Amino acid sequence: MSSEGANPRDRILATAARLFNTHGYPNTGVNLIVAEASAARASFYDYFPSKEALGVAYLRSYGEENLTLLKTLMQRHPEPQEFLRAWTMILKRQARQGMTGCPMANLVAQVGDTAPTLTSDAQSMATRTIVTLTEYLDRAQENGQWKTKRPTSSIARQLFAAYEGVMQLWRLTGKAAALDDLLEMGTSILDRN
Amino acid sequence: MSSEGANPRDRILATAARLFNTHGYPNTGVNLIVAEASAARASFYDYFPSKEALGVAYLRSYGEENLTLLKTLMQRHPEPQEFLRAWTMILKRQARQGMTGCPMANLVAQVGDTAPTLTSDAQSMATRTIVTLTEYLDRAQENGQWKTKRPTSSIARQLFAAYEGVMQLWRLTGKAAALDDLLEMGTSILDRN
Repeated sequence: MSSEGANPRDRILATAARLFNTHGYPNTGVNLIVAEASAARASFYDYFPSKEALGVAYLRSYGEENLTLLKTLMQRHPEPQEFLRAWTMILKRQARQGMTGCPMANLVAQVGDTAPTLTSDAQSMATRTIVTLTEYLDRAQENGQWKTKRPTSSIARQLFAAYEGVMQLWRLTGKAAALDDLLEMGTSILDRN
Repeated sequence: MSSEGANPRDRILATAARLFNTHGYPNTGVNLIVAEASAARASFYDYFPSKEALGVAYLRSYGEENLTLLKTLMQRHPEPQEFLRAWTMILKRQARQGMTGCPMANLVAQVGDTAPTLTSDAQSMATRTIVTLTEYLDRAQENGQWKTKRPTSSIARQLFAAYEGVMQLWRLTGKAAALDDLLEMGTSILDRN
């Protein structure tokens, strides 16, 4: 996400991301975003024809950033359990820095049936994440880092579910121990024959 | 949740639950609830001093219903894996009947930092669920249905995270296979030494 000092479009997007993360998408009006980004209301609509268009831009920006981060962790850690350990550490660091859960999951929960474009965008992003995890597990298996008899696509989906689950539990219990569970849950999922 | 034909308070609560589940809490105004419940606006405020008070009543009503359901499943299935199988089947049935994810998790995501009472109520409900799961695992272990060397409270938290995770993945992918994962993820978590 670009810094709030950048050009007006990036400033609006960065401000919106901060407000969406704190107050939630439905509770954040365009007026507040424009005011906090020190932008003109008219220029908002030059960049984003609607609030939903801004929501889609926010989601894509987060989604690309998160996929890039996951891919970096995968490259650094060809062994799946080491990857899980690194992923868990990153989440704990992000939690200390003010992360408020998975933006994809939060947004889908927040809009209900009121923003179908946003929902389907989040769905294709989730699918891409699962594909990326599947390809990683396939490589790890080819390279002899780990093996399984089960379909790697279903293991990948379960690892992603474990990630979403610990993020929810962390929100619901307020305790960082929930994030630590990603390592143990993920290891249980990887190790199952 | 009471039927929509009941007394005004129950009718408002049932209507609100339906609308919150479909459109999300922040996207559902009091005017719409009152209109769809065929209630008078003044009577709404007799029963619920604010929309947040209605949100709390909705959460408690769902929470009690869900805990009762879990306890029934636990009594019927003293063996943890059988309990997981029954829980998974119930989720799939609820999904076919229009469930839109875990109301607790959805609500916490939806309100962001705008409704602290709701958030802390959801948090104590999540804690009660984990305690109930822990007590169940302790009984299963005492009765020789299953055993572990790890703390049952951490296994309980991971099972709850698996539940939240598959609910999210189901929302994010739109595929029921995600709900089926609860059985395999849960079994992996239970079986780990």
